[in-house]
Amino acid sequence: MKIGNLGVTAPKGFQAASGAAGIKNNGSPDMALIFSEVPCRAAGTFTTNIVKAAPVKWDQHIVYDIGQAQAVVVNSGIANACTGAEGYDCCRKTADAAAAAFAVPADQVLVASTGVIGRQIPVDKIVGGISLLKPQLADTREAAAAAARAIMTTDTVPKEVSVSFALGGATVTIGGMCKGSGMIHPNMCTMLSFLTTDAMISQAMLQAALSDVVQDTYNMVSVDGDTSTNDTVLLLANGLAGNAEITEKNGDYEIFRNALFALNRELARKIAGDGEGATALFEVKIIGAQSKEQAVTLAKSVVSSSLTKAAIYGHDANWGRILCAMGYSGAEFDPEKVDLYFESAAGRIQIIAEGVDTGYSEEEATRILSEPEVTAIADVHMGSAEATAWGCDLTHEYVSINADYRS
Amino acid sequence: MKIGNLGVTAPKGFQAASGAAGIKNNGSPDMALIFSEVPCRAAGTFTTNIVKAAPVKWDQHIVYDIGQAQAVVVNSGIANACTGAEGYDCCRKTADAAAAAFAVPADQVLVASTGVIGRQIPVDKIVGGISLLKPQLADTREAAAAAARAIMTTDTVPKEVSVSFALGGATVTIGGMCKGSGMIHPNMCTMLSFLTTDAMISQAMLQAALSDVVQDTYNMVSVDGDTSTNDTVLLLANGLAGNAEITEKNGDYEIFRNALFALNRELARKIAGDGEGATALFEVKIIGAQSKEQAVTLAKSVVSSSLTKAAIYGHDANWGRILCAMGYSGAEFDPEKVDLYFESAAGRIQIIAEGVDTGYSEEEATRILSEPEVTAIADVHMGSAEATAWGCDLTHEYVSINADYRS
Repeated sequence: MKIGNLGVTAPKGFQAASGAAGIKNNGSPDMALIFSEVPCRAAGTFTTNIVKAAPVKWDQHIVYDIGQAQAVVVNSGIANACTGAEGYDCCRKTADAAAAAFAVPADQVLVASTGVIGRQIPVDKIVGGISLLKPQLADTREAAAAAARAIMTTDTVPKEVSVSFALGGATVTIGGMCKGSGMIHPNMCTMLSFLTTDAMISQAMLQAALSDVVQDTYNMVSVDGDTSTNDTVLLLANGLAGNAEITEKNGDYEIFRNALFALNRELARKIAGDGEGATALFEVKIIGAQSKEQAVTLAKSVVSSSLTKAAIYGHDANWGRILCAMGYSGAEFDPEKVDLYFESAAGRIQIIAEGVDTGYSEEEATRILSEPEVTAIADVHMGSAEATAWGCDLTHEYVSINADYRS
Repeated sequence: MKIGNLGVTAPKGFQAASGAAGIKNNGSPDMALIFSEVPCRAAGTFTTNIVKAAPVKWDQHIVYDIGQAQAVVVNSGIANACTGAEGYDCCRKTADAAAAAFAVPADQVLVASTGVIGRQIPVDKIVGGISLLKPQLADTREAAAAAARAIMTTDTVPKEVSVSFALGGATVTIGGMCKGSGMIHPNMCTMLSFLTTDAMISQAMLQAALSDVVQDTYNMVSVDGDTSTNDTVLLLANGLAGNAEITEKNGDYEIFRNALFALNRELARKIAGDGEGATALFEVKIIGAQSKEQAVTLAKSVVSSSLTKAAIYGHDANWGRILCAMGYSGAEFDPEKVDLYFESAAGRIQIIAEGVDTGYSEEEATRILSEPEVTAIADVHMGSAEATAWGCDLTHEYVSINADYRS
């Protein structure tokens, strides 16, 4: 398996385009198209927030009831959430316009939006954008990279990952792009992530693999504890790789699932490391847990703790906050048996042993915590289950971004 | 019922003292004593964090197993949490020293600590502090006010409230002081709060009243979502008011409970308004709920949302974040039936009606959100239950305080 940094055009038969349709006030790119030369099986996972954006409802209908798609229309700048009937109508008009442009059925056009909640999208700008972008569709690396940039909101870098691997007598590729940054605490799904593959796989197996891997990837990320109204992962498979079709959970399924996991793990880490205002990726590993569920609960509690995140920003080994966050997580454990370590490219240091301070060097700990990627490892000594969660530090810049996001 | 701003010496027979024992590095007052001339019935509520500080364990033994106390020894600067056997031994030595000084049994001396987790308290400084403070014990307003100042950590103002009311043929008084500011998200209990009363009431009724009122007061406060290892509320009743003893849930109990609620509600609001770095008290009222539990879940989710809190800091009516936080709370409701209002001393404005924007004036909303106390009111139109939660805005100063708290 080869991991690379190509995006949604990496698999055979996928094209992308992007540009500025005038939805963002500052004239930045704010619209992207993904198009497959042939119809795809479509899988998706969506926010569990009961306030669901209109595009989430539109896509759920397509993924759950139809299971096929050929195009995705994405805009950044406005989320099309809390927009009532007018918002849903905007999705329909968008799909109609794309259907006419690409000569595909409207119920095979997925849509996705990210940005401010509560504002209506000027649908004429989206329709104009589709006309503008259609002639630019290309299967190049550059087209994918530009699309990854167009879906950004407060992200500082575009996020693309690709994997290639041998499967069923062919070489299969999965490509992906995503955006994250704020309102990031996915539950059963994720922020916006668009995945393409040329694998030949049934819709049921495609959905099974996706639903499985989001649990240990996007669902283990938290930037600010706020689960969005728009979280969406879409995965399109057009079958052009020519592998023997996957229709059950056999060896080929495992290979595909593992590649999909590796790709999404990288995308999830990129989202965490580029959280709003972040200066560091903060990884939390719980080991020695009694069950996976316990490890997940503990890891997510620590990675979501505002006080812990602020201490990471200050490169301060304030480990009491980590034990505190484990303590209020709801998971049972014995605080007096916990060992805790900090680790980064600068080294590894044991901070507490059996629940109390080891007498570690603060200077050494600060040196380790000053790297752009830092990991806290807590061993609860109860079994062999483990889990990893990803987040970022809490910074002045996070507050600046969010105190006045709409202006 | 008369609400005032006297503290723990307001009821008959209570004295306080405070001073600098050398636990804080900067020489600020860091120790306080509360003493009753006669033994008291003692009630308490404590953190549900399974990482419990040593003084929490010490006090739970006294409140649950003995139910009587005559003195409280409090220090700020070090939390005495995650300190193992040595930490618990520090509580015992503190109680022994106070017992000797005041000629009371050691198991009637409550202790409480707040500050950095994981560091051992220099117990000789606490013992020295008891000798230093004992001669200064006084039943004056000034002594109480100085004690309220000595228990502060990152608090910017001391917090005292008192109530007096007629009860069972006498005038009864309750006085209280508390500290809050950071690691504030109490669950079944609270931050540090010390309450005194001269009411004559059985220990069982005292505990029942306290356990009841914390639910709608301290437990509805969140500064940063982190439930502390040290949260403690202690309530001492010395019976000196001369009222007919309360031994069951009769009319007198209701009067006492209501006064206790009014006092703790004010203390809870003070804690929220003085949250670390706060520039505003943020109140969230859910009305029209189907059940109290639903209203509580919704109110706490909104008041804890980092994105919502940052928007309040920016005086930005970014209401989508409020609906989003309601949506991921776990409570069921119909987003398309929600009405939302902002209210403050500057007026009241309806922001959304049946889930969508009313076309309100952003300028007017910003004016209302620029007050030091702002309220969001969401009507979910499902019934008549309601709940109120208190928090504060998320500011640059919060990050500054917590990025480097230990230096």
